[in-house]
Order: sequence, then structure tokens, then C-alpha cells
Amino acid sequence: MTYKVIGNSVNRVDAIAKVTGKAKYVDDFFERDMLVGKVLRSPYAHAIVKNIDVSRAKALNGVEAVITHMDLPKIKFSTAGHPWSLDPDHRDIEDRLILTDKARFVGDGVAAVIAVNELIAEKALKLIEVEYEILPHVIDPEEAIKPGAPVVHEERPNNIISSFGAEYGDIEAEFKNSDYVFEGIYETSIVQHCHIENHTSYAYIDTDGRIVIISSTQIPHIVKRIVGQALGLPWGRIRVIKPYVGGGFGNKQDVIIEPLTAAMTLAVKGRPVRYRMTREEAFIDTRTRHAMKFSLKTAVSKEGKLTGIYVGDIVNNGAYASHGHSVAMSAGSKFRPLYNFRSIKFDPKTVYTNLPTAGAMRGYGVPQICFALESHLDDIAREMNIDPIEFRNQNLISAGHMDPLTKNVVRTFGIPECIEKGKELINWDEKKKRYKNQSGERRRGIGMACFSYLSGTHPVALELAGARIIMNQDGSVQLQVSAAEIGQGSDTVLAQMAAEVLGLSMDMVHVIASQDTDVSPFDTGAYASRQTFVTGAAVKKAAVEVRQKVLELAMKKTGLCGDELDMQDAQIIEKRTGRVVCSLEDIAMESYYDRVNASPISSDITENVRINATAYGVTFAEVEVDMKVGKIEVLEIYNVHDSGVIINPKLAEGQVNGGVSMGLGYALSEQLLFDKKTGKPLNNNLLDYKLQTILDTPEIGVAFVEKYEPAGSFGQKSLGENPSISPAPAIRNAVLDATGIAFNKIPMNPQAVFEKFKEAGLL
Amino acid sequence: MTYKVIGNSVNRVDAIAKVTGKAKYVDDFFERDMLVGKVLRSPYAHAIVKNIDVSRAKALNGVEAVITHMDLPKIKFSTAGHPWSLDPDHRDIEDRLILTDKARFVGDGVAAVIAVNELIAEKALKLIEVEYEILPHVIDPEEAIKPGAPVVHEERPNNIISSFGAEYGDIEAEFKNSDYVFEGIYETSIVQHCHIENHTSYAYIDTDGRIVIISSTQIPHIVKRIVGQALGLPWGRIRVIKPYVGGGFGNKQDVIIEPLTAAMTLAVKGRPVRYRMTREEAFIDTRTRHAMKFSLKTAVSKEGKLTGIYVGDIVNNGAYASHGHSVAMSAGSKFRPLYNFRSIKFDPKTVYTNLPTAGAMRGYGVPQICFALESHLDDIAREMNIDPIEFRNQNLISAGHMDPLTKNVVRTFGIPECIEKGKELINWDEKKKRYKNQSGERRRGIGMACFSYLSGTHPVALELAGARIIMNQDGSVQLQVSAAEIGQGSDTVLAQMAAEVLGLSMDMVHVIASQDTDVSPFDTGAYASRQTFVTGAAVKKAAVEVRQKVLELAMKKTGLCGDELDMQDAQIIEKRTGRVVCSLEDIAMESYYDRVNASPISSDITENVRINATAYGVTFAEVEVDMKVGKIEVLEIYNVHDSGVIINPKLAEGQVNGGVSMGLGYALSEQLLFDKKTGKPLNNNLLDYKLQTILDTPEIGVAFVEKYEPAGSFGQKSLGENPSISPAPAIRNAVLDATGIAFNKIPMNPQAVFEKFKEAGLL
Repeated sequence: MTYKVIGNSVNRVDAIAKVTGKAKYVDDFFERDMLVGKVLRSPYAHAIVKNIDVSRAKALNGVEAVITHMDLPKIKFSTAGHPWSLDPDHRDIEDRLILTDKARFVGDGVAAVIAVNELIAEKALKLIEVEYEILPHVIDPEEAIKPGAPVVHEERPNNIISSFGAEYGDIEAEFKNSDYVFEGIYETSIVQHCHIENHTSYAYIDTDGRIVIISSTQIPHIVKRIVGQALGLPWGRIRVIKPYVGGGFGNKQDVIIEPLTAAMTLAVKGRPVRYRMTREEAFIDTRTRHAMKFSLKTAVSKEGKLTGIYVGDIVNNGAYASHGHSVAMSAGSKFRPLYNFRSIKFDPKTVYTNLPTAGAMRGYGVPQICFALESHLDDIAREMNIDPIEFRNQNLISAGHMDPLTKNVVRTFGIPECIEKGKELINWDEKKKRYKNQSGERRRGIGMACFSYLSGTHPVALELAGARIIMNQDGSVQLQVSAAEIGQGSDTVLAQMAAEVLGLSMDMVHVIASQDTDVSPFDTGAYASRQTFVTGAAVKKAAVEVRQKVLELAMKKTGLCGDELDMQDAQIIEKRTGRVVCSLEDIAMESYYDRVNASPISSDITENVRINATAYGVTFAEVEVDMKVGKIEVLEIYNVHDSGVIINPKLAEGQVNGGVSMGLGYALSEQLLFDKKTGKPLNNNLLDYKLQTILDTPEIGVAFVEKYEPAGSFGQKSLGENPSISPAPAIRNAVLDATGIAFNKIPMNPQAVFEKFKEAGLL
Repeated sequence: MTYKVIGNSVNRVDAIAKVTGKAKYVDDFFERDMLVGKVLRSPYAHAIVKNIDVSRAKALNGVEAVITHMDLPKIKFSTAGHPWSLDPDHRDIEDRLILTDKARFVGDGVAAVIAVNELIAEKALKLIEVEYEILPHVIDPEEAIKPGAPVVHEERPNNIISSFGAEYGDIEAEFKNSDYVFEGIYETSIVQHCHIENHTSYAYIDTDGRIVIISSTQIPHIVKRIVGQALGLPWGRIRVIKPYVGGGFGNKQDVIIEPLTAAMTLAVKGRPVRYRMTREEAFIDTRTRHAMKFSLKTAVSKEGKLTGIYVGDIVNNGAYASHGHSVAMSAGSKFRPLYNFRSIKFDPKTVYTNLPTAGAMRGYGVPQICFALESHLDDIAREMNIDPIEFRNQNLISAGHMDPLTKNVVRTFGIPECIEKGKELINWDEKKKRYKNQSGERRRGIGMACFSYLSGTHPVALELAGARIIMNQDGSVQLQVSAAEIGQGSDTVLAQMAAEVLGLSMDMVHVIASQDTDVSPFDTGAYASRQTFVTGAAVKKAAVEVRQKVLELAMKKTGLCGDELDMQDAQIIEKRTGRVVCSLEDIAMESYYDRVNASPISSDITENVRINATAYGVTFAEVEVDMKVGKIEVLEIYNVHDSGVIINPKLAEGQVNGGVSMGLGYALSEQLLFDKKTGKPLNNNLLDYKLQTILDTPEIGVAFVEKYEPAGSFGQKSLGENPSISPAPAIRNAVLDATGIAFNKIPMNPQAVFEKFKEAGLL
């Protein structure tokens, strides 16, 4: 395939809007006399709300309303941003109220104030008197599943949200018959997305009596549905508008603030109310990435063939289910199309605890399992004295692999080429030799890790996307989608696709930069790295329909056969000779103004995407460990991706840079901490929560192995979440290489490194 | 046909928005740091702009830019809001620049200032020094066509814009062979629309480099086209947004302020600029209704049969062509399908003068010709001593009539029934007798007049409308059109149509209340009373498509045949038994979430409406004339309309009330006056321009003769402009009845009445 626009590093369509500050985010919109909503949060990790006296708060001048669970429908709902399912068994767990009658973590919302300004709202919060019955709490999932543990939700007395796993082959037989069986425990910590723009929204009731919500969300159409569900209103009475969004990373794939914002405007007869979280609130009452503790047990033949793996997984889900059950399932399925295990048993337990709720975060379970598996493989290779690359190479699946459970077929498999490229980039063989047997105060090492990542939700759930294209009289087009641009660049790559099919330059494709559920074609939103793949298919379908309409008119006009015609540079040309037959403008003008046949060219389609593709990649890292202070410095890091055809190399590189940066934090510094005794957060602010800064970040090497993926509309696979998956284990394996110490828990911050070195007698 | 929603007086969909003040008009939108544009206008009626020195204005602190014709493209364009034509011979006359190099009327724009606020802009205007070469001017069209008259546009040395008429039969033979030939001269004056909201718009350049214009317009898609043409830009680089509009009556069917507003933002590198006319500016630099002077000559047999008519028409078009040529054509064609003339010759001359430009105004030439013709018929009847109703009745066409020139067929003709009803309402026969031979100081009389009105532009021009319907999960729908709600209620009647086809209550149809040329389906806009008829056909087509999709899914679900199923009250029912088969919500939910077949139900269509229908009506009026002071009081007035099926009686009644009120002003008081020597306007403000007030207005009687019109999608014909057409001649004929004096010129204000009475020796 030769493309003209696809594969080019065109500028982002929102570049100028963003660098000039003209892009409008939720907080840039104002309504006259907008009120402010604020939430009163439980100071206890687990406590029944026995009574709430809001009378003093209500009496405060400037307070318009105070609401508690008693003022709201007693409807339990789920916040998880998944496509709705007609099958009740496929729905998310509905376990929460808009404002709770029982606090399940420190920060759980028990009341809300709507006031004329923020100061008065804050003051009013202090006037609300809540009588709590404090209950014992539990924050460790292993404690939570023990008999007699505090029960977070009455409906699940054992605190287990889900233990739905996956199994094929005969894992017990593998262990019995195997030459070797290796075991290991691997743990990840609670981290958070830390998008620049906190959760923010405002709502009002329009003169049609409908609730209009303007929100910073990844999933406007799902917000519409869930607000309807949470409030017990017909979904058509909710309208959601999404302007520019300052990052989400999965945290805005949850419908967290919108039901409450809607309830707030309902409480003040539809006057506009803004509910905007502070960073401190966002840290505890949005979502986190699940901490997982894996018990791996692996059967290996003496030739180094992996034959079976058992993956136990204890998942700390926090107070409400949200995405809980499906994040573990994602971990248990997305790692499979990579190594050739004959038998697999994935055995998770997703557990309620009295902590902030975990949800979707870039990678959706895969960064966790990738850390465990890829660390484990290095541990095995080391034990068996096999080169870790060699070990992996001899166990890889190959194209044509079909997952025994999902039946998903791997059509392109670029891991071997990714490994080859990564080796070269980092100078693997030379460094491997050089760094053998170090003993100084600063020791260097290299490591690598692979991952597989299946984008979208097919075949588990619905994959639907819509696209609408409208051609102007000059042949330029508007492209309208509900795929949510949240900074990842989807508007740009989707515009490239339309430009490609229609033979237009990018300045002739105008993307409607905001979504409005009233008119934007239905699409479930930005998650699961689905937009380039799934919405891309919809955009292609719409563009092909427009192209066909154009060529049909050109045929009528010229008498030439449609097969002979092509669209290039806003012209209709004869393919064979390249001769310009007429301009696209001629055709568009006739479509608008032909007295008899006028019908402006457009397309408004839905694509139900029932195919999927697994993307792949590897990270190679070189570290230097300061043995005395326990500091790990990443000297070089390379992510090599097999994401099929790359639509926009510059954007793709940016995506990888961001993802690797998150991976560095995950590996080395980030961790949301809680006081064990009280369940209170200890570092829910950007000073104490240690994000990687630019000074901590090495130059990030990015490379792509481009294979044309037949399932992708332009040969593409996903790239959104992928780059953040494998850095942590690659760094961990590099530290192992440098020091001989196997870190089985992240983050490997100086304190943890120091303690481990001490334990190992290195200090 | 039995309808459930059609024919009901449902509330306006924008009622609450408007009465609560929440409806947003152009001036309710603000952009940060919005600049203000102001125009310097010529004080001379005719003068070459020899030189403009803007240096002092530019130097004023707070002035961001000053522009003149020298800064703008030398592209002549037309402002007339017509559908574009691919045929150059069918296009409007392109005779103006955005800012002129030759002033052609007092008020012609020669320069514009863009400043940080209105005061500074006003101040800057005074600092602009223009050197004019003053030319002789002409304001009387009969003078203007004389040899040696001042030439308004070099391209038309005889000042005639158009003399394109219409003719069939042999008019000279009719006169030659006729028993009687009657002649008369009838004149109308220059009046104006006086919509509440003056012309206002603002524009900026978005970060995509496109010009975005928010404007109070009837024709957003045409504004897009004409701004592109005026600035020489590809049309796709213009985006027009129309919020709520405070009236237009045709004055916003002209692209008057938007090209300049766009030029203003271009002059300040895309910063937002608002250009808002004052009432005084709007009176002179928007559009007026053409004053026309008719010379009628009519052949009548001794039995009172009309056989031929010659209509000479001198049309005062003012300084620029705008709609000029087509308003006369409209007058000359729309009166034809009413009386059975064997021969007609319509012989117009539309003439440039140095006055404000005339354009489209409610009725589009028909109020003028109706005044002439219906006055003339009464004069003839009086002369021949035939009852004026009897005279008309014996000359009416009948259903089946085909216009020899347009080939347009009259399918329903309700004039006889309208006359019958009107006679009853006003108690014609009794009063006719009672008011014979009066001689007091206060004399009463009754009169009537008929009209025919062909809506839309078919078969002369393109009639295209778009509609998009999107079904929500609860079965409710959004309706998106580009038909422009400008106060006339089109959003409401279009929503009724969608509700009717889909079996929904009105609260389940959500009309998108604003138009955006980027995403609203193409429609040429609000004019020619086309929306209920033309856009109605599009809405029906879209709704029928949605209905078919729903019923297909219902068939699949139930196994029942589609013919057996119907949609009622948001349910799918079995027609025969009325049994509920499933809810519409069930179907909608499956369309959204069926794992295999999901495809949300929607329709995005264009309808090329190539059929038309002539609407009819009569006015009956009773007046009392105060002979001494020359004051005419309208005691009773009834408009009886044949507009086919009435979609919403309450709205229709409102439409008639408004139209009759305009007709009263046209007949009795309104007239825009100019100083003959200088061409300066004398009463361009609402104090001196005499609109009818509520105190001048009698209770307006409204009745409908509802015939199902097969050309209408729901049996409807037009009603928008119609009510304003026939009041003036009916009142004039009543005055004739009361006093014996034939007023052949309107307005019949006290001064004119007094003079005429004096002239007739009555005083």
C-alpha cells in the first residue's frame, strides 16, 4: 500500500488551538450566575452515615441547596465506562449511590453543597453535621478475603468482586510432567493517572427540560447513559458535551463526577452548577490503577520451552467495583498471544477494600501482569542460565496463532523484529558482555521486556463507532466523530484517514473538535486504545461512501467508468494517464446546485467493528544503580513497537514518549500511600506523590516495526496505551542484570532499593 | 387523513427559552477581548470616493484597524439570499463591493473602523477624512430611466436592472376586441421590516484558519457562500452559526453585514469583531420593500369577464440590485393563478436610484401587485356596478388550472370557500346595505381583497432541504435542520411532523435550535414561505426512513410483517388489534447495543422538492373614516386563508396576526421618507417611522379553509408571508366603499387622506 497522507507526520489539527491557548476546556465555559458545587467527604475509611444535619449549612447566606443520599434516588449504578450490554450478565457491577449512606473509604462523598461561590460552599461544608457509626476497615486485599474481615458491601460478604479467570490446557499435568517448575511473587503498587486537567464538569437544565452536562470526559455517550441510569431518567433526556480535554489516561473513562453534577443542578431547579475537583480530591475520589499481587508458577522443559503457567492474581480494587472485574480479566487475556504456553490458568481475585476505587488506567491490567511475567521470565532465564532474549525468542508464538478462548487470530506478529531492532539500538550483545560481574558503587545493566496488547473490547463487548463526513462546495469536508480527542491525537489521525481516502490535503479536512451527544455520531469513546483502530474503520467507511458518491457523479459527468477514476489533490483524475477530468469542486457544486439532482455529498455511518488485532512491543533499558543511595538512573531506554502501519510518525513518537515516561514513574517512583491504621491518604498531592520530572527522564528512544495489519483499515494496530506497559519490567530486569538483585515489587524507589540491598547484604 | 400531532396547537418548542430570556441571540454571545466594528457612511446620495485618509483614525489609541475599499478584494458580489445557480444566466446581479468606492445612497459604507470599544470606534469614524466628488443623484425611478439621468452603475447606463416580464395570450387583441377597457395607476411606498433585532453578527478566525461568523440571519448556508464569494475565499473556509433570531421578514434573507464582519476580523488577524447596526443604520443600510408604481389596463367583457390585463410596473430598487430583478418577477408571476385572464402581459422595469437598496420583504412583490390589482378590480366593479365579490367570483380560476408559463398546477383552490367564510364573518351583505350612501363626519365601509401566493422558488430555482434525525436509546429523537427558525415557529411545526410520523409525543422530539453550516444538513434557509412546505418534505422523508428502520427491527424481533406494525405513543403496535408488540425503547436499545448488528437508528437526508402549491386567502375589512381629520380606523378585519392542512392552529393564528398587523401599517401609516433634494432619510428611526402600535390595531379575525393539498407532505401549503398581502387593498376598498374615494397610493395616512379629500371637494 502506498499512502499519501497516512504515514506522514502532519501537524496536529489542534496544534494551533492548543499552543495559542484558544482551545476551550470545560473550565473555559461560563454560564451567567453559575453556582459552585462542593462535596463533603468522609474522614473515616468505613463508617455508616447514621444521620446528617444540614440545617446550619442550608441556613448560610449564599447556599442554594445541600443534598445527601436522602435527597437522591436510591438507585445503585456503575461508573465504569463500558459499552452497555443487553445481556444482564455482561453488565458492570452496580454498587454505588451518587452520595453514599455508608462511607467505604476516606474521601467517600456523603453530602454536597451548592452555593454562589467556592468560599461559601467550603464554609457550608463545615456546617454539615454527620453522625457516623465507625466500622472496622480493611485495606489489604489478602486480609479482606479472610473470614471475619470487615465487609465493604453487604452484597459480597467475602469482599470478592470477581474471581472470573481463564484456563486452557491442563496446568496440573504440565507441572507434574515438567522438567522444571519455577515460582515467584510479583507486586505492583497503587498509582494514579495525574492528567493535567482534573475532573471537572458543569450542568444545567435546558428550556426543553433536559439535563445538559459539559464535562471533561473520554466517553460522552457513556456519560449520557450512566447519568440517566444513576438518576433514573430516560437517557434521551441527558445531553453531554465534551470540549477539549486535558488528558484522561482512563481516569475519565469512568463516570465519576457527572451524575453528582447533574444531581446538583436538579437540586437548584436547573440553574447551572459547576463541580470541579481539586487535585487532592482527584487523587482519592477518581480512580487509581489496581495494585496487583501475582503468584506465578511456570512449567519449563529442560530445553527452555515454556509449557504451562499458573497466574494467581490478588487485585486491590478499593471501595467500589468500577472497572474492577474487567481489569483483571484484561490482564489475564491480553498477555496470552505472546508466548506459546500449552496450558494456562489465570486465577484472579478482585477484592473490595476500604481504599479509593481502582479503575481503568493506561494498559488496563496489562502493565501489572507484564511486570510480573517479564520479571519472572528473566528470573527463570537467569536460573536456567539462558540469555533472556534467547529464552523469549524460542517461546514466541507466530502469526496465525489463535487464542483458544477468545478465538482471536494473530495476523501480524512483529516481536522478533522488535527484539532485533531493540538489541541493535541498545547495543545489547556488547553491553551484556561489558556489564558482567560488576562490583563498584555504580553498576550498570541492561534489560528488556516484551508485551502484547489487544486493543478495543472485541470480542468481549460491543465495538461500535460512528463517523459523519459532509462535503463543502469547494470539495473540502467536515469530519464529525464521537471518538474523543483527549490529547492523544485521534482527531489528527482520523482526519488523515479521511484525507487519504478522499485525495485531499489536510487543510481541506475540518474536524469538528467537540462532541455533543445530541448530534455527534454514536461512538463509545476513548479507551482501550480503540480509536485509531475502531473509529478509524468507521472513518474509512464514511470516506469510502463519500468517495463513491463523488465518483458516481464524476462518471455521470464524464461518461468514464468508475474504475478508471480516482480522487487526487482535490481533482478527479483518470487513473491510467493521470489526466485531470474535472475538479472535485465541480462535482461538489453539482451535488449542491443541480436543479434536478442536487443532493449534497455526505455520509453518516456506523461501523460495528467485529475484528481485532494484537499489537506488540518491547522495551530495552540500560540503568546505572547507585548502590549506596539506592538510586536507579535510566541511562537509555528504547521502546520498539509493532503497531502495524503508523498513521502519523510524529504523533506516534509523542505517544511513546508519554507512555514510557509513565512507565518510568511506575517502575521507579510513583506510589499512592495510605496510613494502614486509618486508611487516610498520605501523599494525595503533586508534591508528595513522586511523578517523574523532565530531569528524571532520559532521552526516550522510539522505533517502529511496521507490518501491514490486514484487520486494520489502513494496516494499523493500536498504540495508545501500549508504550506504558513494558518499561517497568525492562528496567527491573536491567537492575537485576546490574546488581543480581531481583526486585519483585515496584516502584523501585530509593527507599525500597536501599532496604532490599541491605536485606541482600550488599550494604 | 387523521393526524395525532399535526393539527394540534402544541406549544412552541422555543416558548420557554424565549419567555424566560434563556434563548441566546447573537448579542448574547461574547468572546474574550471582542472588538467593535463601526462603519463610516456617505453623507451624499451619489459621490465618488476620490480619496480617504485614515491616518488620524488609525493613530487613535484603541483603534485596531481601519479599512476601506482599497484594503479589500475588488470583487463585486450580490447580497441576495437565493440558492446559487450553476447557470450564470440565473444568478443574481453582482454589483457591489464590501466597502464602496462610489457612494450610491446616503449611508453607503465607505470605511470601517475596528476598535476596542464602541466609543473609540465612533470617535475614530470622525477622524477619517474622505474626499468626495459629488455627483448629481436621482431618487425617482421614472426620472432615473429618462435619458441623461445620473447613472448609478456604469454597467447599466439606463439604470434599468431588469425589464424581464411575462406574457401569454395576445394582450393587444384583447384590448381591441373587448367590450370595456379600464385603466388605473396604483402606487406603493417604501417601507421596512422593522424586526425587533437589528442586523448583528460577529466573526473571528478559528485556529483552523477558517472564518467563523455568528449572525442573525435567515440563511446561514447562503451567508457561507456569499461571504466566500465576496472575499474570494473557498466556501469551505467559511463557517456560519445562527443562534435564535429576533425576526427577519426577508431583511435577513440578504447577506448584508456578514462579508464586512468577516473583512473586519481579517483586518485584525482573526480577533473577534462584532458589527452591530443601530436602528438608524438598519433603516438605511439593510433593505426596504420596493416601492412600485403600476399602470394597469384591463379588458372586460360586458358580462363582467376579465379577459386580458396589462401590468406596467416601475420598481424603485435603490442603489444596489440585491433581490431587485426577482421581486418584480415574483409580483408578475404569483398573482396569475387566481383570476382567469386569457391574456396577460407583465411589463416591469426595475430601476436603480440613489436610495437605500430594496430587497426581500414579506410577500416579495406580491403585496404591491395585490394592492394594485385588487384596488383596480374594485374600481372596475364599481364602474360596472357589479358587486365586487360577485365580480371576483365569476372570474376565478378553478382547481386543475395550469399556469401557461411556469406549468405550475393548482391542485387545491380554496378562494370560493374563503370568500364565503369572510362574508359571513364580517356580515357582508347586511353591512353592504347599511353603509350605502353615507354622508356624516364618520363614514363606515367594507371591503375585501383576494390573493394567491406560490411558496418557495420552484420551478424557477432549486428547492433543496435537509433533515437529520437521530434516535436516542429511549426512543426520543433529535431533529436537526438548517431551516431557520426566525420566530415564525418552523422548529415547532417541523418537530410536529417528526412526532407524527414516529408516533412520539412532542416532548420526545428535541429540535437542535441553532444552525451551524459545518454540521447542520444543507438547506437554503427561511424565505419564500418555504419551510413548512419544503423543509417539511425533508423532515417527513427523514422521519419515514427512521420509521422504516424501526419497523424493520421490530419485524425481525417479532416475526410480524411490517405492514401489520405501527408506531404509536413510543410503542410498536399491531395495527389490527392495537396490541403493544414491544416498546420503541426496546428497538432503540437493540439498535445501539446488539453485539452483532448494532447500528443506532438515524437518518441524514436531502430532499429536492420539485413540486409546489399555491396558497390563497382573502381579507375582509370594515373601516370608519373620520372625514375631518382624515383618519381611517379599521373596526374589523378578517383574514381567511387556504393554506392547506394547518399544522399548528395556534401558531398559524399568530402568523396571521403578525402579518395582518404589517398589512395595517402598510395600508395606513408606514413610509420611509427621503429628502428629494439631498436623498437623505427623514424618518429612519422608530419614533418618526410610523409602525402600527397595539392601540392602532383592532382584534384580528383569523379563519382557515383547510383543504388537503396533495403536493404538501402533510397536506399543507404556505402561510408565512401570506397574511400580510391582502389587508392593504381590502382596507383601501373599504375606504372606497365608505367615502367613494379611490385611494390609489398607500399609505393612506391622515395627511394623504386629507389632501385627497380636499382634492375631491369633500372638505
